[in-house]
Amino acid sequence: MPTGPPSDRVRVRRHPERGVYERQVIDAIVDEALFCHVAWVAPDGTPRVIPTIHARVGDRLYIHGSEASRTLSGLRTGIECCVEITIVDGIVLARSTPKHSLNYRSVVVYGVAREVTDPDERDMAQRALVEHVVPGRAAEARPPNREELRETAILALPLDESSAKVRTGDPLDPKEDLDLPVWAGVLPLGLVPGEPVPAANLRPGVEPPDYVTRYLRPER
Amino acid sequence: MPTGPPSDRVRVRRHPERGVYERQVIDAIVDEALFCHVAWVAPDGTPRVIPTIHARVGDRLYIHGSEASRTLSGLRTGIECCVEITIVDGIVLARSTPKHSLNYRSVVVYGVAREVTDPDERDMAQRALVEHVVPGRAAEARPPNREELRETAILALPLDESSAKVRTGDPLDPKEDLDLPVWAGVLPLGLVPGEPVPAANLRPGVEPPDYVTRYLRPER
Repeated sequence: MPTGPPSDRVRVRRHPERGVYERQVIDAIVDEALFCHVAWVAPDGTPRVIPTIHARVGDRLYIHGSEASRTLSGLRTGIECCVEITIVDGIVLARSTPKHSLNYRSVVVYGVAREVTDPDERDMAQRALVEHVVPGRAAEARPPNREELRETAILALPLDESSAKVRTGDPLDPKEDLDLPVWAGVLPLGLVPGEPVPAANLRPGVEPPDYVTRYLRPER
Repeated sequence: MPTGPPSDRVRVRRHPERGVYERQVIDAIVDEALFCHVAWVAPDGTPRVIPTIHARVGDRLYIHGSEASRTLSGLRTGIECCVEITIVDGIVLARSTPKHSLNYRSVVVYGVAREVTDPDERDMAQRALVEHVVPGRAAEARPPNREELRETAILALPLDESSAKVRTGDPLDPKEDLDLPVWAGVLPLGLVPGEPVPAANLRPGVEPPDYVTRYLRPER
């Protein structure tokens, strides 16, 4: 039997057949997505949402920000947040405009963010955030010094209350549209790296590492 | 003199030098981004955020959803929402981990969504949503029939209260890091189309149109 939703608010209602509650599927989407969107309710009662990078370590999602950021200072008080992670895989072109769609994999997470204060967990989470964006980088770049560590706020959110929604495959045209002389199918889309551009002040003779020239999301 | 923020909550505080308030810049980001994230506060006071496609027509942002969707039914009551639009242009690799960054262009919009009920505006907005995702498509695919039109809820949000945040260029390493033997620079990233995949039940002889085989975001 497939796994069910861990709470009512993460249950996929529109197109329930697209709902996935297996943590393995959720984790894979979280790990592949470069960044996420974090939403919360400001003290004045209005909604806020920002894009930010994230990293998953086991059952936890880490996000970070400047210690001075008003954004994270709101979340650090332990208020409820909602994280949405979205990967678009393609445009679904149907014979009729209302049947057009996107192929996508998305995850939603609800929970209360906790500020990470333990030095070891902070260190681990910072490495995980770098490795999430560029696997291999944390071993090569200079690690943060004490002052830089102090400037960064790190939050942890459990992945317990989460679900995924996945659409794949062809357009779903009604039978009576199938003979229309209109091309139908999927145009795949992906976040693709270009040629690395060295910094203008790069020390001569330093070549781009393999983890840059062969960058792939997810790492394969 | 550069344009200032239209309200305090859209003023860019962290890295104010990245804040852009010119509508031309905001519009270009909105038009290029395939989809957006919409956040609002649920009746129980908790935050919600969903990804959805959008289309800009002049000073208005349109989003749509199923008439039956509990998501949009929340927004239709005229509650405040916050829309975030994010385009990632590259990964910025610095000599130290804390100076790593992303190059990006993002837009935030605050406002109260209004349900579109006027038939002409609904028709125009639906075409705009299709044309936003695949320019050229609305002229070729079958338009919605009366029943399909009824099944779709359309919301409009003014772009008056919006701002953009843009990061471009090289990593900003402190002088003392410049001699480290670590590659630094930018790895460009972009949403790139692959080869179109025809639907399994595509009528024989129908070739993919130019707007699919030469798909570009933004259209150039």
